[in-house]
Amino acid sequence: MSNLFVMKFGGSSVADSDKIKSVAERITKKAEKNRVVVVVSAPGDTTDDLIEKARSISRSPDPRELDMLLATGEMQSIALLSMAIKSKGFDAISLTGPQAGIYADNVHTKAKIKKIRPVKIIQELKKDKIVIVAGFQGINPNDDIATLGRGGSDLTAVALAAALKCRACEIYTDVKGVYTADPRVVRNARKLNKISYDEMLELAGVGSQVMMARSIEVAKKFNVTLHVRSTFSGETGTIITKEASNMEDVVVSGIAYDKNEAKVSICDVPDRPGIAAKIFGTLAKKNINVDMIIQSAARERYNDVSFTVSKNDLKNAILLLKSVAKRLGAGPIIFDKDVAKISIVGIGMRSHPGIAAKMFRVFAEQGINIHMISTSEIKISCIISRKDTKKAVRILHKKFNLSHT
Amino acid sequence: MSNLFVMKFGGSSVADSDKIKSVAERITKKAEKNRVVVVVSAPGDTTDDLIEKARSISRSPDPRELDMLLATGEMQSIALLSMAIKSKGFDAISLTGPQAGIYADNVHTKAKIKKIRPVKIIQELKKDKIVIVAGFQGINPNDDIATLGRGGSDLTAVALAAALKCRACEIYTDVKGVYTADPRVVRNARKLNKISYDEMLELAGVGSQVMMARSIEVAKKFNVTLHVRSTFSGETGTIITKEASNMEDVVVSGIAYDKNEAKVSICDVPDRPGIAAKIFGTLAKKNINVDMIIQSAARERYNDVSFTVSKNDLKNAILLLKSVAKRLGAGPIIFDKDVAKISIVGIGMRSHPGIAAKMFRVFAEQGINIHMISTSEIKISCIISRKDTKKAVRILHKKFNLSHT
Repeated sequence: MSNLFVMKFGGSSVADSDKIKSVAERITKKAEKNRVVVVVSAPGDTTDDLIEKARSISRSPDPRELDMLLATGEMQSIALLSMAIKSKGFDAISLTGPQAGIYADNVHTKAKIKKIRPVKIIQELKKDKIVIVAGFQGINPNDDIATLGRGGSDLTAVALAAALKCRACEIYTDVKGVYTADPRVVRNARKLNKISYDEMLELAGVGSQVMMARSIEVAKKFNVTLHVRSTFSGETGTIITKEASNMEDVVVSGIAYDKNEAKVSICDVPDRPGIAAKIFGTLAKKNINVDMIIQSAARERYNDVSFTVSKNDLKNAILLLKSVAKRLGAGPIIFDKDVAKISIVGIGMRSHPGIAAKMFRVFAEQGINIHMISTSEIKISCIISRKDTKKAVRILHKKFNLSHT
Repeated sequence: MSNLFVMKFGGSSVADSDKIKSVAERITKKAEKNRVVVVVSAPGDTTDDLIEKARSISRSPDPRELDMLLATGEMQSIALLSMAIKSKGFDAISLTGPQAGIYADNVHTKAKIKKIRPVKIIQELKKDKIVIVAGFQGINPNDDIATLGRGGSDLTAVALAAALKCRACEIYTDVKGVYTADPRVVRNARKLNKISYDEMLELAGVGSQVMMARSIEVAKKFNVTLHVRSTFSGETGTIITKEASNMEDVVVSGIAYDKNEAKVSICDVPDRPGIAAKIFGTLAKKNINVDMIIQSAARERYNDVSFTVSKNDLKNAILLLKSVAKRLGAGPIIFDKDVAKISIVGIGMRSHPGIAAKMFRVFAEQGINIHMISTSEIKISCIISRKDTKKAVRILHKKFNLSHT
């Protein structure tokens, strides 16, 4: 459909009546010259409040019933937003995930979208209505409501934009776009006008909270242009799109940090084939995600295996590893929670050698000790002491000259 | 289905987590020996809060969107109640009105149930699950959620009991049953063990707040035995059922009062055919319900026409009547808000003459002036001054000997 936009608003944008009215204003302005599908999250803290209510009833609430409960948050948003738009003289209709034709799999509370049949959405668009869709939810093969887990509303928006072949999917947030670094840490951090899917994916993976990796992956797969921008200002934000030829001129696009990981080491692990599979297989079985993995091969016959896990998983990971280490005949397990991961991301790294070396040199000059290093084609991450986080981000931002285009 | 009960719980029974848990206890006890379908309302003040939220967005919220919003209240109740039941080791499943197969008509915010196809409910009952259905909602011919208006959850319960051919439909409330008079007014008011549909209908029509007339009508039509009882105690409440042969021995079953009506009179209305049709047709067109109507034929050529309307409608009624009176060449319109309607109801009246006369005599002895009288086969209602309400109810309760069986 030509001139069709998907606009996605997060929970903070619809937290109260005044905010809902100002979002409605925003939408109707767009709708004067375009067709519009809106995706919206639950208002403010509604989802957290509902989870708390469920926990007060049952320590581990039934997942199907939890989805029935959580889905009501987005239903309230779409109904209220649709009322606000209609009272401004525009025609609008709210649709739940199931009504919008969003089909999900059977995994309650973190379902995946299987397919989208936007029959009803297209019908209503053809009647010149603004269509308001509940984010974060779909219908599963049992005809039950299923929720899509963290970042689910972004995913709904991107998947709808793909299914409807939209011109762009606009993600409205409380920040103005994607920055070269966290503006709370680096005062002269610069808003990026454009960034590639791959760079955004790496940034999402290392603590930039703007969008979750799963939505960016879908956008990349279906070549949906994303526009991350502010709910509260009219200015252009950051366009996330496929790699353009001139993008490689920029060596480093952004710097991110993540304080939510902990470093774990198993010492003196016997150097036999299959050892790594045993260690990380055990963790995977319990749904513990491991991020950076480093195996030092300094000595003969015994290695130290180090990796990072989310702090939330640390306690469980250590319990599991103690029994694994015993079975393998490995040594003690040590861990460190006071670490941070600092990453630099940029497509240009592929054609500009020496970026990693520059990063390490900068850290050395500042007396910042590097605990672990991991690199991908377009990203270099270092684990350092948590206390050095701000200093590291600021100096990298300066030395890589990110405040200038 | 044999040994199947419908249990309906109102909003105050599920207002918080502790209440939800105690309702779950109640349900699982019943489910040990029976199959159970539960119908539940939105928790506590949720519906009112949502309406207020909608009003803060739009002065007259779109009815379809209001239904989308309101339906979330019951969805929260069914999800939380189902979690509570499952955490006690019983199997349960929550179903929205649409999932339960409740088909409604197109009138948003006060839809009527058109039919019930309880396919999914029966499937789940056969899997030995306790089925929790959202009251007050259904799916309409546009595949939209529609709500059933006031008393909608009772209606859902009664209609499901009829469709499933249940042994009984239990209505759990914060009172112990149906009383001979309001226990807050008459201290020795007696809980009735049994009452006929017709008597209950008359009581519902004259201010007894236990159940709305529409649900009782459906129960009567499909011969569903109702059991009105307390959420908080195990004792038997009041059975509402078809007329039994011995019921006529009781002359008066109950006394009710209603302070929500106002008396209106149009004076000096020309005595021509079609006049009443014009007056009451005008009110009906604007959805103003008229209750008692009295036309005095004392004088020649001109009559006074008096009737009662709900206080909420009084202002509108008077506006409409002023222009009607002008066109008809009638005299002034007078009204009185400080009135109450006192009614005595009983099947036995049909075979015991003199009940009305006794009621009037009792009022006369007490110096209570009667403004209007209206009678049906099993009910006598009088409009009196509002200040005499308590005195009137108490003395009738005593003189008709209602505190003794």
